[in-house]
Amino acid sequence: MKLFNCDYNEGAHPAVMALMNETNMQQYVGYGEDEICAEARKLIKKACAREDVDVHFVVGGTQANLMVISHALRPHEGVLSASSGHINVHETGAVEATGHKILAVDGGADGKINWRQVEEACKRHAEDEAFEHIVKPKMVYISFPTENGALYSKQELADLRRVCDKWGLVLFADGARLGYGLTARGNDVTLSDMCDFCDAFYIGGTKVGALMGEAVVIINDELKGDFRYIIKQKGGMLAKGRLLGIQFKALFTDNLYFDIARRANELAYKIADACKEMGLKLLAESPTNQQFPIMRNDVIAKLGEKYVYSTWAIVDEKHTCVRFCTSWATEEADVEELIADIRRVNTSEPADFKELMLDVKE
Amino acid sequence: MKLFNCDYNEGAHPAVMALMNETNMQQYVGYGEDEICAEARKLIKKACAREDVDVHFVVGGTQANLMVISHALRPHEGVLSASSGHINVHETGAVEATGHKILAVDGGADGKINWRQVEEACKRHAEDEAFEHIVKPKMVYISFPTENGALYSKQELADLRRVCDKWGLVLFADGARLGYGLTARGNDVTLSDMCDFCDAFYIGGTKVGALMGEAVVIINDELKGDFRYIIKQKGGMLAKGRLLGIQFKALFTDNLYFDIARRANELAYKIADACKEMGLKLLAESPTNQQFPIMRNDVIAKLGEKYVYSTWAIVDEKHTCVRFCTSWATEEADVEELIADIRRVNTSEPADFKELMLDVKE
Amino acid sequence: MKLFNCDYNEGAHPAVMALMNETNMQQYVGYGEDEICAEARKLIKKACAREDVDVHFVVGGTQANLMVISHALRPHEGVLSASSGHINVHETGAVEATGHKILAVDGGADGKINWRQVEEACKRHAEDEAFEHIVKPKMVYISFPTENGALYSKQELADLRRVCDKWGLVLFADGARLGYGLTARGNDVTLSDMCDFCDAFYIGGTKVGALMGEAVVIINDELKGDFRYIIKQKGGMLAKGRLLGIQFKALFTDNLYFDIARRANELAYKIADACKEMGLKLLAESPTNQQFPIMRNDVIAKLGEKYVYSTWAIVDEKHTCVRFCTSWATEEADVEELIADIRRVNTSEPADFKELMLDVKE
Amino acid sequence: MKLFNCDYNEGAHPAVMALMNETNMQQYVGYGEDEICAEARKLIKKACAREDVDVHFVVGGTQANLMVISHALRPHEGVLSASSGHINVHETGAVEATGHKILAVDGGADGKINWRQVEEACKRHAEDEAFEHIVKPKMVYISFPTENGALYSKQELADLRRVCDKWGLVLFADGARLGYGLTARGNDVTLSDMCDFCDAFYIGGTKVGALMGEAVVIINDELKGDFRYIIKQKGGMLAKGRLLGIQFKALFTDNLYFDIARRANELAYKIADACKEMGLKLLAESPTNQQFPIMRNDVIAKLGEKYVYSTWAIVDEKHTCVRFCTSWATEEADVEELIADIRRVNTSEPADFKELMLDVKE
Repeated sequence: MKLFNCDYNEGAHPAVMALMNETNMQQYVGYGEDEICAEARKLIKKACAREDVDVHFVVGGTQANLMVISHALRPHEGVLSASSGHINVHETGAVEATGHKILAVDGGADGKINWRQVEEACKRHAEDEAFEHIVKPKMVYISFPTENGALYSKQELADLRRVCDKWGLVLFADGARLGYGLTARGNDVTLSDMCDFCDAFYIGGTKVGALMGEAVVIINDELKGDFRYIIKQKGGMLAKGRLLGIQFKALFTDNLYFDIARRANELAYKIADACKEMGLKLLAESPTNQQFPIMRNDVIAKLGEKYVYSTWAIVDEKHTCVRFCTSWATEEADVEELIADIRRVNTSEPADFKELMLDVKE
Repeated sequence: MKLFNCDYNEGAHPAVMALMNETNMQQYVGYGEDEICAEARKLIKKACAREDVDVHFVVGGTQANLMVISHALRPHEGVLSASSGHINVHETGAVEATGHKILAVDGGADGKINWRQVEEACKRHAEDEAFEHIVKPKMVYISFPTENGALYSKQELADLRRVCDKWGLVLFADGARLGYGLTARGNDVTLSDMCDFCDAFYIGGTKVGALMGEAVVIINDELKGDFRYIIKQKGGMLAKGRLLGIQFKALFTDNLYFDIARRANELAYKIADACKEMGLKLLAESPTNQQFPIMRNDVIAKLGEKYVYSTWAIVDEKHTCVRFCTSWATEEADVEELIADIRRVNTSEPADFKELMLDVKE
Repeated sequence: MKLFNCDYNEGAHPAVMALMNETNMQQYVGYGEDEICAEARKLIKKACAREDVDVHFVVGGTQANLMVISHALRPHEGVLSASSGHINVHETGAVEATGHKILAVDGGADGKINWRQVEEACKRHAEDEAFEHIVKPKMVYISFPTENGALYSKQELADLRRVCDKWGLVLFADGARLGYGLTARGNDVTLSDMCDFCDAFYIGGTKVGALMGEAVVIINDELKGDFRYIIKQKGGMLAKGRLLGIQFKALFTDNLYFDIARRANELAYKIADACKEMGLKLLAESPTNQQFPIMRNDVIAKLGEKYVYSTWAIVDEKHTCVRFCTSWATEEADVEELIADIRRVNTSEPADFKELMLDVKE
Repeated sequence: MKLFNCDYNEGAHPAVMALMNETNMQQYVGYGEDEICAEARKLIKKACAREDVDVHFVVGGTQANLMVISHALRPHEGVLSASSGHINVHETGAVEATGHKILAVDGGADGKINWRQVEEACKRHAEDEAFEHIVKPKMVYISFPTENGALYSKQELADLRRVCDKWGLVLFADGARLGYGLTARGNDVTLSDMCDFCDAFYIGGTKVGALMGEAVVIINDELKGDFRYIIKQKGGMLAKGRLLGIQFKALFTDNLYFDIARRANELAYKIADACKEMGLKLLAESPTNQQFPIMRNDVIAKLGEKYVYSTWAIVDEKHTCVRFCTSWATEEADVEELIADIRRVNTSEPADFKELMLDVKE
């Protein structure tokens, strides 16, 4: 079976493994205060074109989210998120477990939240006579790209920044797949822009070539203090912190992080383009490494004999939307073979799905 | 100004005050272990027609909710609630502050949650491959009556009980205005039924004649243990616990709690009936002490010179829905005067509001 | 039986009841935003000789403590407390339930914490290489008077203030029995001093004449914002907030709060003086309304036929320390009778207890 | 510089790295549900000689502790721990952040808690009239070996088990250095015994050859349900869960985990024996890979030019206790060189330290 179901089926990129092997017997101090972590932080700051940001390595995405959110909010404050936001649906209530309400707003098909929704939520709260009986919006959580593979434009981020400034909100971006977003077709946002628009964000390693690990970047000075206490308290501070530093050093040397993400995107586009050529509909245009073609169930079943994919949404009785993911580890030959196989088994007439019954799963 | 905006504008019912005055200089032990609390508990059990339930007095409704919910759930479990549920919108994130997610489902215009919604939520969770990444539904929270004045029928409660049993959920009812619900026109649910259908519920005192205080009734044996620890931990155990016992003793002597609620309902119906007679539309048929007529804004403004009401929802540019509340303290003469004044200032043509723009506030 | 076991055996002071009765049928807006609460806040500010403090009414002492502490601390910060501090031993982990560690230091026999202990704790933390692995001390919690009836002198408070300023700590005083402390024999601290030395404290009502209720006074501007959200979230905001305003208005009119506290102290001194005259030892000199004589167990048993007291500590096999409490409700005649009865049954030889085995209970 | 300061200075044992390299390009499903994790779990169960236990892999020790504790306790329950327990001093309040109080008891010089202390705490709680005002003891947390390198005997564990059964407590062992404990000189406890005596414990990987990772073993059926939800909620579920499975598979193949621990212990004994031979005192007899010799400050300074050690405790003005740690990565030649160097620079007369001023740091 060939796995196209997600971007974390293999171990780490060979360059990461090489550096791990090479440094394995070297002695370093613990808890992320070693030289390799320092080098990795330096490389990330350089990629951000910012010297004045703080970079912390944590073990995973749920951790990065719950740490930043509980670090930034006071007890009565909540975080605005698209209803499909990862924190709202797929982290087993991790944010609520730290005491904070997620204020969900409709994320629509693309899973994005726009500045008008933030404005509306803040205005409604401020104007309510009983405002003290209602959780105070204090943060906006976005995913870049979103859980559905969509991107924010530079203008959209600038608009969110503006409305956050107006109401005194913190803007935090979940970058579990940040690499795929920044190197996507049509994207106009850079890592440096992320620093300009966000108070904090994280650069995902787990899904972009690392074994595990995310780099939290804190830009807002008011959020910088004492973050390492939070990492320790939440169980995210590795004794052998080097493990995180090594991976990010490898990924941020010679642009590797971006190169492997771009390559994965391009392989994904091949799949998407081939599907469209065959007359298959896509759930949405996705500019990143996840593609969501809609196929007849019997076609999918035949593909399932050889490939593993994610079932993303039930479209109608006869059609389903599946997700194909690529990653640094995807072989071009496998993509060609997949496309050939789709072409072979797909005998669908072009269908017209007026209203997609979305029942998205990840 | 005459206040019709809510049911907590006055102090306590005279019978409550009388017992407080009468017992003021008597000495009792503290923390709810005195004889008056014991008598009050006995009276409530009798009204429930159940000897095998536990009764605890707590200071307020938000407290009752957060205590029962955090007492019953394990860290990864959440509570299903109508989106308009009091815990979801008007308790400043009190439940999340204890670590639990509220799983909101559409409560519609009446603020009710039905068994199909519970079934659907549990089924969806159970069938999700990534179920462990999603908060586990473990409790259903309902309000009786709801925040919008609606009631559950006996059949609806039986249906909720059945689906809760099927999926192993706890059914908990917020009875902040329970008295008004149980004595409402058309209601077929009794206090004893509440015990049959719910695992726990509370009998609201604050809004039905007491100065403050709610009586939590726990029916499910598995939820009984150690609840007093939770009351103490959350700051709800009064040193002079007698204060709560006195009030519930007075209210549950000679059926007072139900008599004053029924009387308030009837005064509310007078307002509703008069409005309908004048051709005014109501937001919804409300069988309890809250009525929601829709009036022209200039009519409302004129009434506002003499009466205080709650602005409940913007209906359209020219019309607003207001809430008039009655209580044990409402004078029949004041109701008559209010009706006469509405009649005098209302010159509206009967309007037809096809789609109500609900923007409900409490 | 006559109860001398605590200061919350009766209802409220008659002046409190009178104002409650008088205003019972008046209509007020809810949630503490009514005129009576405003008047009460004004009277308290006047008693504090400070216009620039915020005053909030909450239902009880555990609530006041958990609200102020969770309001002031960030997740990784903790509160220094005497090991015998109420928050550390008698609030069922209320503070920990909000996520914060109590950093207990030895409170000794009097239950006080001194500036050297604070200095030592802060210094040790700051100098530890692994300081980020250790909860950061950020607040000092003191009780005035302490749980054992002891007081801080003005100099001791000034010293605590100085060390708190040095290390950036918040100083918070639990004033559950503040009235008894401020009117005690030998006390040199005023309500206005409390404002000068503390960032926040609360004025206890429950144990000094009210039915329930404490007035939280916030002096530090940085702690003022959004406190009402916290009150609501933790379940401490009464719909009929007037109930708290009425009580504090009555207590802070014509110096009543201090007069009844002083009178209770004086009755307590009578008991203490008589005991000493009979050669009985006291656990400690207590300048407030709690007295802790040590008696032979058979003497205590005889007294127990007529009086209720608290068993405070086992002294040795034959002797026990008991607590007698007075309050606004204590009759002078009852105190005289108690003294006469002690005199009658006490036939102890003066004992010498070298090392008291303290096993304090409240 | 040669590092002897802790047991996490290097990367992973070569056998771990080999398996990581070997499997790097293989595709596995995520979140710990892959075949390698299954194999690792099987190997651990075999080493435990128990088929009926649950094994979960988590990222670190603080995580393992906070997960098991918050999973097992209800909100008002607390955990008994030695005052020097890792959860009480070096996890930045991780347990309190989940809402639970740590009930510290004096751990003495060895950091152990004995059955009498547990009995005393439970009895005191049960007999207190105000027991509901006090956190309920529900768990005993022990470290094996303790933070000070001491071990519990089989009899001591049996005694703890008995008292836990009597009072209904959960016994949980922190095994961050479990391998060193089980293979220590004089130890009579086996992995299988751990399963017999504990309700849950964890097998530390980070400090015994892994890059990171601990294996939580749950024996008590009542604690088994839903633990994976907790892992996910607390941010401990790796997408590439294989990373943990690989490491434990390697460590539990051919007894590697125990062999490398035993070897490290033996190198540590060499250091200890040499010190004793030179007349140096040890802080305590430590049967594991940590040794605590006391040396003159000038001797230590000279060693510090070539070696890194941990400063463990100030003994007196002229003497300090330092910690030397060995691990799988320690070279025998380096140990010989260290011993030779100590011999060379140490010119101390045998000292007599009557009362050790312990100010332990880690």
